[in-house]
Amino acid sequence: MNRILLDAAEVEADGTVRLADERARHIRSVLRVASGDLVKIGVVDGPPGTGRVRPGNGPEVVLDCSFDASGPPREPLDLLLALPRPKVLRRLLPQVAALGVDRLLLANAWRVEKNFFSAQVLEPPALREGLLEGLRQSGRTRLPRVTVHRFLRRLVEEELGPPERDTARLLAHPGVASRLGQWIPGAGQTRLLLAVGPEGGWIEPERNLFARHGFKEAGLGSGILRSDTACIALLAVARERLNREV
Amino acid sequence: MNRILLDAAEVEADGTVRLADERARHIRSVLRVASGDLVKIGVVDGPPGTGRVRPGNGPEVVLDCSFDASGPPREPLDLLLALPRPKVLRRLLPQVAALGVDRLLLANAWRVEKNFFSAQVLEPPALREGLLEGLRQSGRTRLPRVTVHRFLRRLVEEELGPPERDTARLLAHPGVASRLGQWIPGAGQTRLLLAVGPEGGWIEPERNLFARHGFKEAGLGSGILRSDTACIALLAVARERLNREV
Repeated sequence: MNRILLDAAEVEADGTVRLADERARHIRSVLRVASGDLVKIGVVDGPPGTGRVRPGNGPEVVLDCSFDASGPPREPLDLLLALPRPKVLRRLLPQVAALGVDRLLLANAWRVEKNFFSAQVLEPPALREGLLEGLRQSGRTRLPRVTVHRFLRRLVEEELGPPERDTARLLAHPGVASRLGQWIPGAGQTRLLLAVGPEGGWIEPERNLFARHGFKEAGLGSGILRSDTACIALLAVARERLNREV
Repeated sequence: MNRILLDAAEVEADGTVRLADERARHIRSVLRVASGDLVKIGVVDGPPGTGRVRPGNGPEVVLDCSFDASGPPREPLDLLLALPRPKVLRRLLPQVAALGVDRLLLANAWRVEKNFFSAQVLEPPALREGLLEGLRQSGRTRLPRVTVHRFLRRLVEEELGPPERDTARLLAHPGVASRLGQWIPGAGQTRLLLAVGPEGGWIEPERNLFARHGFKEAGLGSGILRSDTACIALLAVARERLNREV
């Protein structure tokens, strides 16, 4: 845990935070702080900050907190992901949150098994906990906003809306000659919406659907990757390309 | 399984291959091939090829195989990885093999727990099986060559040898301003030796040791990533940088 995360309601008006749950145990047993030490904290969907540990040996840990003036900016990357099998999604959620995406759109596709949509990991508390794990690890505070889309055509044709001027749209597809690593965002494009397919890839009509709605295809030029490996590799390369002028 | 892997000794002089183990079951039950169908095959550390299924309904699958004239070229990337905890290494091995590395050097570091070196996953059959899983998935045939190094200083000072003209050396370190995504290989450099640290990163004397032996530091410019996520992200970005002119 590289940052202790708080709900906004846990911060008292004068910046005092009282913890008595596993976060208190983590601060005492893993971080092994002494009175007066600083701990990295953050409000979920709010600013990061630091908390100074007040003297006291009880089970409760009391922190005097101060926060940055504002929360972190929106991540420049949205991920449209064909819903992976529950075990893979459970593994991916923290990693996606740690890599940093703004929106995570979990979508149906021809090669997605329908029963994946009734998985326990898709229930809001499970989704949230998976993402929080990634935030704590990475030090981020902003939760990706997750939506679930059972109808891919409706998502692409209606819910996404027309392409926005500042946002590039890319469809990851294995074996495509055009490489994500050589992608250059168009003029004024500072954001990316990246669509990543299921195990086995998108089918032809899906590729056509995306193409009609402004998605260009790009691959990694590599062998076939497991869908979670592919997802991490694609997010990492996409972030580097987005940030290439920084 | 995207490619059925064979040992060279399993291929008879006329190209016949007889399978009766779980590969035969996979060909029958998952690939559901009929007599005359082609199956993607490959010799471990040898060439890929195709096998035509001979008629027959017994438990044995007989393939008439033909192979490419030569095996795939060496991958241009070597990974020096601080030995991760056994659970993480077990998860990483197939992914590293699927992403494609030539040599995998598993090394000690200050923040590596000593008992990791006695893990079962480090025994040659377990290492090999983990890597084979990644080859089958990715369609590759060349096994990364794995070595284990209990003494980091000896590895860097002696075993690596002096920097080779065609090989860049990079040390991944979180929070370093210089970014792997902007790295440009030097003139004539077609290979990369990438060193990736343990959870918590390299310590200062280790960074100095690497610096004295030609390693430049680079980061991903991201939050803190779990070591397996970091490893996949770094390999993906490194490959893209190596291949940027392709």
